[in-house]
This record gives sequence, structure tokens and C-alpha cells, in this order.
Amino acid sequence: MEIPQLINTLWVVVSAILVIFMLGGFIMLEAGSTRMKNAGHIAGKTIFTFGISSIVFWALGYGLIFGEGNAFIGFSNFFYDGGDLGQDIAGPAFFLFQTAFAGISLTIAFGGFAERAKLSVYVLFAVLFSVLVYPVIAHWIWGGGWLSALGKQDFAGSTVVHLTGAMAALAATLLLKPRLGKYNKDRSPNQLFGHNQVFTALGVLILWVGWFGFNAGSTLGVDDGFFGYVALVTNIAAGVGAIGALAVSWMSAGKSDVPTMLNGALAGLVAITASCAFVSPLGAIIIGLVAGILVYYSMILFEKLNIDDPIFALSVHGMAGVWGTLSTGFFATPELAAANGGRAGLFYGGGFEQLLVQATGVGVSALYAFGVAFVLLLVLKAVLGGLRVSEEEEIMGLDMAEHGSYGYPESMQAVVEQAASKESATSAPQGNSFKG
Amino acid sequence: MEIPQLINTLWVVVSAILVIFMLGGFIMLEAGSTRMKNAGHIAGKTIFTFGISSIVFWALGYGLIFGEGNAFIGFSNFFYDGGDLGQDIAGPAFFLFQTAFAGISLTIAFGGFAERAKLSVYVLFAVLFSVLVYPVIAHWIWGGGWLSALGKQDFAGSTVVHLTGAMAALAATLLLKPRLGKYNKDRSPNQLFGHNQVFTALGVLILWVGWFGFNAGSTLGVDDGFFGYVALVTNIAAGVGAIGALAVSWMSAGKSDVPTMLNGALAGLVAITASCAFVSPLGAIIIGLVAGILVYYSMILFEKLNIDDPIFALSVHGMAGVWGTLSTGFFATPELAAANGGRAGLFYGGGFEQLLVQATGVGVSALYAFGVAFVLLLVLKAVLGGLRVSEEEEIMGLDMAEHGSYGYPESMQAVVEQAASKESATSAPQGNSFKG
Amino acid sequence: MEIPQLINTLWVVVSAILVIFMLGGFIMLEAGSTRMKNAGHIAGKTIFTFGISSIVFWALGYGLIFGEGNAFIGFSNFFYDGGDLGQDIAGPAFFLFQTAFAGISLTIAFGGFAERAKLSVYVLFAVLFSVLVYPVIAHWIWGGGWLSALGKQDFAGSTVVHLTGAMAALAATLLLKPRLGKYNKDRSPNQLFGHNQVFTALGVLILWVGWFGFNAGSTLGVDDGFFGYVALVTNIAAGVGAIGALAVSWMSAGKSDVPTMLNGALAGLVAITASCAFVSPLGAIIIGLVAGILVYYSMILFEKLNIDDPIFALSVHGMAGVWGTLSTGFFATPELAAANGGRAGLFYGGGFEQLLVQATGVGVSALYAFGVAFVLLLVLKAVLGGLRVSEEEEIMGLDMAEHGSYGYPESMQAVVEQAASKESATSAPQGNSFKG
Repeated sequence: MEIPQLINTLWVVVSAILVIFMLGGFIMLEAGSTRMKNAGHIAGKTIFTFGISSIVFWALGYGLIFGEGNAFIGFSNFFYDGGDLGQDIAGPAFFLFQTAFAGISLTIAFGGFAERAKLSVYVLFAVLFSVLVYPVIAHWIWGGGWLSALGKQDFAGSTVVHLTGAMAALAATLLLKPRLGKYNKDRSPNQLFGHNQVFTALGVLILWVGWFGFNAGSTLGVDDGFFGYVALVTNIAAGVGAIGALAVSWMSAGKSDVPTMLNGALAGLVAITASCAFVSPLGAIIIGLVAGILVYYSMILFEKLNIDDPIFALSVHGMAGVWGTLSTGFFATPELAAANGGRAGLFYGGGFEQLLVQATGVGVSALYAFGVAFVLLLVLKAVLGGLRVSEEEEIMGLDMAEHGSYGYPESMQAVVEQAASKESATSAPQGNSFKG
Repeated sequence: MEIPQLINTLWVVVSAILVIFMLGGFIMLEAGSTRMKNAGHIAGKTIFTFGISSIVFWALGYGLIFGEGNAFIGFSNFFYDGGDLGQDIAGPAFFLFQTAFAGISLTIAFGGFAERAKLSVYVLFAVLFSVLVYPVIAHWIWGGGWLSALGKQDFAGSTVVHLTGAMAALAATLLLKPRLGKYNKDRSPNQLFGHNQVFTALGVLILWVGWFGFNAGSTLGVDDGFFGYVALVTNIAAGVGAIGALAVSWMSAGKSDVPTMLNGALAGLVAITASCAFVSPLGAIIIGLVAGILVYYSMILFEKLNIDDPIFALSVHGMAGVWGTLSTGFFATPELAAANGGRAGLFYGGGFEQLLVQATGVGVSALYAFGVAFVLLLVLKAVLGGLRVSEEEEIMGLDMAEHGSYGYPESMQAVVEQAASKESATSAPQGNSFKG
Repeated sequence: MEIPQLINTLWVVVSAILVIFMLGGFIMLEAGSTRMKNAGHIAGKTIFTFGISSIVFWALGYGLIFGEGNAFIGFSNFFYDGGDLGQDIAGPAFFLFQTAFAGISLTIAFGGFAERAKLSVYVLFAVLFSVLVYPVIAHWIWGGGWLSALGKQDFAGSTVVHLTGAMAALAATLLLKPRLGKYNKDRSPNQLFGHNQVFTALGVLILWVGWFGFNAGSTLGVDDGFFGYVALVTNIAAGVGAIGALAVSWMSAGKSDVPTMLNGALAGLVAITASCAFVSPLGAIIIGLVAGILVYYSMILFEKLNIDDPIFALSVHGMAGVWGTLSTGFFATPELAAANGGRAGLFYGGGFEQLLVQATGVGVSALYAFGVAFVLLLVLKAVLGGLRVSEEEEIMGLDMAEHGSYGYPESMQAVVEQAASKESATSAPQGNSFKG
């Protein structure tokens, strides 16, 4: 390999490591956003489902995306042997980077399963999603498929990774139904607070850090230092997203809660993912700001629709994923679009053409991901006799019910004892936070 | 761009990511060092204030530091468009790296606000500090200003980043006054223990890791592999700092508490920040050891002075920042000083000249940062009708008071109920740890 | 330095940072796997013992491993001055990378000390292990010693780092005896659950991420992009390890507990450490799968033998370290073995020769590490009047006993009060989780 290829390979390997580190962000984000009785389960499942995703990607996923095939699917290069050095970067580096992306999309999907799906559903859906959902859309957009031929812009995966994951999460949450105690009979919601906002904040920061690999790594090289530009634009959108969510929640609710503000930062990151190579810093500010505001109203909307979205996957990855993908149709500058093989956006004299392509891509991808995930989950439901743990198990929590020990044995013992003593003393119903 | 420039750019981008990761260290350090009822707030504010800092830096800060101007301030290059490729590294890479530094300095400053400042103070001070405090000192020392002309050595920012932040923290803690319950009427202190030492330890380790970007990244390139030397020296000082603080606290108090030892590691890191490019490994050992010992006595001193420093910003970043900046005046070797454009230190035949320059730089920078931060906070106090939440809100905790939900809803519920049942049973005053 | 050397140096520095980040993984893994009353101590000791390890490595360790010497020990280059630029990478970069490895091995060893050893034992054993145990084995295998001359393959340290650490942990746990309450008089075990599985999961993810530096960094350069291949193979083994442990525990116990599955991922990582440069992706899958299964039965075995291994160092780093070292004797492919200076494994036509060398290396290294650590601890026991804190201190927890404050002051206060009120009310024995 030549020197420039070695440098490119180095950057892609570092980026792959950063994207894999994002799984640590999801561990903390998801655990922090849910309740104590499910925390060990939620944290632990991220590890083994990434294991499943990695192996399936090695066996099949990579070939389905990047193999020789047609406009709809690839079909070669299965069971990768790691022997190719590629043209611009070493093959295994690109492979690892793509492995990480597939794992992130799956992890986003599992947001819709939180606090009630059976462990076996996680195992089986991890396999099915990694074969039948993610690789198809990734092939369409990144693997030379029909959306790529149409000129769809999705630099680092607002659609491919985030929206795909979010639509699977939507299918799951609709089929699983809301968590016990989440909605009352009159459809009014209860707040099932996540148990640890420090975890959530650390999770968001880790995701922010890992996102530099996600976005700037998607340049697949260091040419002209452009990856530094992508990193900068990413940072700006994240920052503005947090500010936007903070401001809108403060102004409309009188107080700004921490999770909303944190979701604003994530929404900024998701939105800039498609457009980070196409827009100016000013464009990034607008994209991030809209994402931060959007995520707040989206959270309210799903609550009103009685759709239970414990980790806000639908708002953060779905809504912001749609917005981000469309945003390149608005904000792509002629210079950057040209340099990165796309067309300028509406606000930069590019007309409606690119916007239409983006909208088509979003619509079709969302439908595919939702539809296939929905059918797969229906099949699993039939095969496994239901997707959801029993009511008793849900009340007990998945840590104990599915794994046989609490994630926080000492703290939970205190909670359980307190609940028990209260019950025996007063026979009153137990607190919401424990009973779920 | 040429190959060496690409490699340099790659290292600077990686370093910028590492420095931004340090915010995760601060999230855990600060949350761990404070009480449960404020944890969500403290963790979350680090995210949005970095957002504010990033945007202000983009709009104004960068231009005030590095723009064309005079000895006191820069004044061009506002609203950076990311189009320059720079000479040795790509412009956006350098920009992102500097964005991160500005964010760290602000985060250090907020150490002095902990557990009692209003949320609105965070928002407004983030803007003001990022325009009027940090860029000025950064211009003086790094942007071609008058201290730079004098020959001030501050390789990676013991003064620019750490001391500046710490002096703003001092202004804040003096104006905000100590936390409720911190000092008794006879001026004797109470210990308001931080709630989670595991968080604190992880925070310190993350900071240690990120500091390799902070210090070794400040080489702005990989020439001669010197950045590896800087990283090595940094690691040594951190290790010795921990050992020094452990030893001195053990010997003088009979027991070594965990937070002091952890602060020793941080003090070693802060101290070596100025001198990491100028000193030998042996020099690093002495610098780190003194920093570790200094931080212990400094913590005691501020306690005696009834200055409330919840996250030890004054001791870790202030005292060690001063010591570190002065230390190059003592320990800079002739070879390294020459190679990095400075003069040798007192112990290496360089005479008092460099030491004097260092002392001048420290003194003037500290005065400026303290004075301006103090005035800005007085203005904010007048505008906002006080900097501090009400006594009731402080007792309740900022999570509930400022954000409307606890950071640990389940754990806090248990604490609140326990406190309530105790009160009703005995009418005795509540425990210190909850009442604050 | 030439361009390729600069790129290699950059990768090694990044890798060193990743390996040092693994200490954060150990902080979370160890704290999560033990009880609340010891958490601050366990997290904090990782910081200062890495400090000790770093300084001892600088003064002596590096010279003992890589200095001029004989087949058994090196003996030059003490008190490293950082002035060498090396041949393929800058000297300080290599030095920092090796510093990190020494620190990891020590941290693994301390797994066997958890929840009962005196703080002074940590301080002194950190020095002794870093002089007399680790450098000797590292010299034998990596420093040109006799095992290296025999052709022992241990690419990134399954033996040197992991097995060495685990054997010292075994010596410690045998001498320290099991924790109070761990085994009953009839030799049946009690479960002393770790207090925070989210910590454990984050710890494992951080270790996974850091391991890319550990293994792929051990290429010491970017030639041909081979480091990307090593990273990919590492990721596969980790993923399969998690799946293997999940599957075997689920099938044999009816439920899969989170810590076992997490240990499976770690076991996969430990096992692939020796072989990552020698095996195919398919080989990695088998190696990881066996490791994941092995760790489960190993945990049961040690429990049956009444050997108390709180953080599973013996199973994860010991058993998987042995398996991993032997595995190259089975699975090394002719091509990769040739390219990396070794011989093919048994299953790839290499005969028993390499396997025998591997077995010899494992056996002798394990004996040396165990024997010397055992003797050193006996000496410490005599000098310090015992290795273990008093029974009262152990019940109280090391946070309070050795450091004077709880790691979780607020939570522990609740636990202590609850325990006290229960005791006064009923005079019944306290709960296992608090009394230990």
C-alpha cells in the first residue's frame, strides 16, 4: 500500500473504534433512561447483540450490502476472509467500520423493545434485522443500489443507520404495546422516569465523541483535511441541538428538563449525519437548531399518540433522521455538493430536484424498514408465543425475571424491602417507580 | 495538502476528539463530587454549556484569539467558514482543537458554581466567559499577544485554560458564598461528601486519557515523534501526582481518602500542562510530586479560609496551574527549550529571566480572569436578581428545583421518604447529607 | 524520521492511549463486580497503582525487559530519558505503549485482592510485581529472552499480560482466603453479588474498545494495513465470546446471567490476544466461542474449589489466557504465521511443534508468575503482620476502613440505617449484602 492509503486506513480504523465506542454511549443512555429493575439487562444486552450483529455482518451482511448484485441487493463476498487490501483503504479497516455501523443501527432499533421484550426476542431479532432489514437499505444507498443511482445523499447514515433503526423501533413498540403503567385508561400518560441522569449525560457525551468517527470517518480518508471540516460541522450541530432543546422546553414548559436537553444534542447529531459533508457551518447551525426544537415537540407528539418510546428512539433517531436527510436537499452548498458527488440544495439554487430525491429515499426506506421489521416481529410473536414478558415479570423487572439477579442487588433489596414494609403497613398500592 | 500535513492534521483531529472526551471526565468528576440531589443538573449542564461555548467560539472566540489585531486582542476571522487549509494542518482541525480547549476552560470555571447557582447564570456566564475572559488570555499567550512577545511558556495551557478557569471559579464561589451547611457559625467546616467515588475515579481516568490529546496534541503535529515524548512525560507527572497526594494525606492524616488521591493525579496533569514540552522525565517527576503534595495542602487552606470549592477547582486547576506555569521557569532543559522556542529554567542554567516572565504571565492572567469574571457576575447578579437559587430550592436540590425531576428518581424517592418518616417519628433535624 | 515511521508512531501512540483507557474499563468492571461498601476503594486504587506501575516501569521495568542482558533478564536502559527515536517508531511512543501493558497486567493481578486486602499491600505489591514478576516474563517472550528464542508466539500478550496477572491474582486469593461469608462451613458457596451491572457492562465495552489498541497496536505500525485485520479478528472473537457464554449459561442453567455473558466477551478478547495476528476470521470464531464456553465452566470450577475470585480474573484472564496462547498452536495459518515470524498450527499442517512451544511457554510462565507472586506476598504478610484487613474492617467495608469515607456516602447511610433499624427491631442477623 502507498502512504496516502496507509493514512486513510489509519483514520478509518480509528473511526471504527470511535463508532464501536458509541455502544458504550448507548449502554449509559439506555440504562439511564429506564428503571433500576431493568438496568443490568439493558446494559448487558447491548454487548451480546453487538456480538450477534458482528458475526452476522461477517457471514452475510457485508456481502448483501457491498457484494456484486443488482439494484436491490448484493450477493457475494460472504464469510469475509480479510484478505483484500482495497483501493483507498485496507479492506479489513473498511469492513470493521461497516460492522460498527450495522451494530449501531440494531442498537437504535432495540430502543423500542425496552423494559418489556423477552430476551429471546432480542437474540432472534438481532439476527433477522442484521440480515433482512439493515443490509437492504444500506445496499440501496451505499452499496450501489437504486437510491444511490438516483443520487440520494446520506453521507454518514441519517437514513441508513438512524432512520432504519428508528422504524424498527416503531414497529416493535407498536407490537409490544406500552409499558405497564405508562398510559392511563383515559389515555393520559404517566412519567416513568429513567433512573440515572448522570448515566444519560455520560452516554450522550460518549455518543457525541464517537460521532466524530461516525461522520468524519465516513470520508474514508484524510484527503485535503476535509474530515476535519466534517468533524467541526458535526460539533456545531450537536451544540446547537442542545441549546435549541433547552430553549424550547424552557420557554414552553417553564422548566427545562435534563433528558430533553440531552436529546437535543443527539438530535443535532443525527440530523447532521446525512448532511455533514454538504453544508456550511451556518447550515449546520440551522439544521441542529431545528433538530433540537423538533425533538421536543416530537416527544410530546408520541406521548399524545400513546406510543411508548422509552429511550426516545423515534424522536431522536426517527424524526431527526428524516429532518437530517431532507436538510441536505435544502442546505447543500454547490461547492460541497460538487466535491462530494451531489447536487446543491433548494436554498442554494439547486431547485427541488435533490429535495425530491431525498424525500423519496426517506419515504421508501422508512416504509421498508418498518414493514419488514413489523412482519418479522409478527413471525417471532407467533413462534415464541408472544414478544413480551408476563405482567408479573415486567413488574419484577427484567434483571431478575430474565437473568436471575438484579442489576443493583443492594439498592433493589432496599427498594423491595421498603415497598414490602409499606404494603404490609398500609395495604396501599406500591409506588409507581417500583411497580412500573 | 502534502503528506506530512495530512498526518499532522490527523493527529490534531484525534487530539481534539480526546479533549472533547475530557468533558465526559468532568461530567463524572463533578457529579461524583457533589450530592445526589444535584447530580442530573451538574451532569447535564456540561453538555449544553459546551454547546454554548462551541457556538460562541465559532462566532467570536476564534477571531478574538487568532484574528489579526493588536497585542491585546484579535479582531478578524469571525463566523468561521471552514474554508482554510492552513499551513501545517487543515484549518478546521486546528479550529476544532481550539474549540475544545475553550470548552474545557469554561467547564473548569463552573466548578465554582456547583450546587447553588441558578440555571440562567450558567447560560449567561457561558456566553460572557467565552467572549470576554478566555479569548483575551488565550490571545495574549497563544494568539501572538503581549505575553507571547515576552516569551511566556505555556505549552498546552496551565495558565490559558486551567488557571483562567480556576480564577473564574474563585470569583463565582466568593460571590455565591458557601453552600448551605458547609461552614458552621464558628467557621468550622462540615464535609458535604460527594455521592459517588466510582464516578469520580472514572472521571479522573477519562481526564487522564483525554489529557494525551490536550498536551501531546498541542505539538500540532507528529514531527520527529516528539508528541510521543510529550505523552510520556504527561503520563509520568499524572502518576507521580497520585502517589504524592496519597503519601502526604496518609502521612499527615493517618488515612488517605480517595478524592484527595484522585485530585493528586489531576494536579500532576494540570502542572505538567505548561511544561510537558520543556522538561525531562525526571523534571516531570518532581513537578508531578510537588503538584500532588500541593493540592492536599491547598484543599486544607481553602477549607480554613471558608472558601467553598466543591469540585476542588481552585486547588486542582488553580494552585497546580500556577505551579505548573512556574515550573518551566525552574525545570526547562536547554535542549527542549531551544527546540520549542523558549529559554532554559533556573535549575538548568537559564537564570531567573524565564521564571520572571512566567510569574508575570501567571500574575497578570490570574488578575484579569478573576477581575473580569467577578465584574461579569456582579452584573449578572443585578440583572437576574441574584446568582443563587433560594434556600428552599437548594435544600430540595437543583435537579428538582431547576429541572423538575430528580436525576435519580427512584433513589431520591427512597431518601426523601426515609427522611420524611424519620422526621415525623422523631421531629429531629434531617441528616446532613440530604439537607445539604 | 521518515514518513512511514511517523505514521507508525502515530498509531502506536493512539494505541497506547487506548490501552491506558482500558484502566477505565477495569475501574467500572471491578467496582461493578463488588459491593457498595468497597466501591470507592476499588475504583480509586486503580488510579494510584497505575501511577506506581508507570514510575517503576520508567525507572526499572523497561530496562529489565528490553535492556541488553541475557536470556533471562535485561539490564540496561534504566531511568529512561526519552531521547531515542528508535528505528520504526519513536522511542517514547513504544515506551508509553509498554508502560500501559505493564499497568494492565498489574491491574489484573489486583482482581485477586478485591474486598479484603490492606491498602498497604496494594502499594507494596504494585512495586514488587512491577520489578520482579512482569518484566521477567515480558523479557522472556518479548525482550529477546529464551522463550522468544524458542519461537513462542504471543502476539499481544495472552501470556505476558493476562496469564501473568491472573497467576498473581491466584497467589493472592489463595493467601488472602475467601471473603467473609463467601463459603459456608459445608463448602457451599454464597453469591456476593456485584453491586452494579451497568458499571460492569460499561467496563466491558471500554475494555473491548481499548483492546483494539492492545491487539492491533501490537503490530507497532500500519504496514499493509495489517493492523486493521488484527482489529477485525479481535472484534469477531469478542462478539463470539459473548454469544458463547450467553448460550452455554442459558442452556445449562435455564437462565443467562448478565455477568457471565459479559465475562464471555472478555474471555474472547483475552484468548484472541495471543493469536490475533496468526489466525483467520473463522479461527477467531472458534477461539472466541471456546473461550466463552470455557469461562462459564471455569467460574463454576473455581467456585467448587472454594477459591474466591471476585472479579473472575482467574477465569477470564487465566483460563482464557492459557487457551488463547495454546490456540495459536492449533489455528495459526501458514501464511499469517510466516508473515509474522511464527509456525503454522496443528490444524493447518504445522504439526505439534508450535503447540509444544506454546504449552511450554504457558507452563513455565504460569509457574514463575505464581511462584514469585506467592513468595512476595508471604514476605509482605510477614512484614505487614498480615495481608488482610480485620474482620470488623471487612464488614464495615474498605471505603470507610481504609479511606475514612464511603464511596457512596448517601446510599450507604441509608443502608446502614436500615440495617440498624432492622437489627434493633428484630435482633435478626443482618442481610448478606451488607454484612458481606
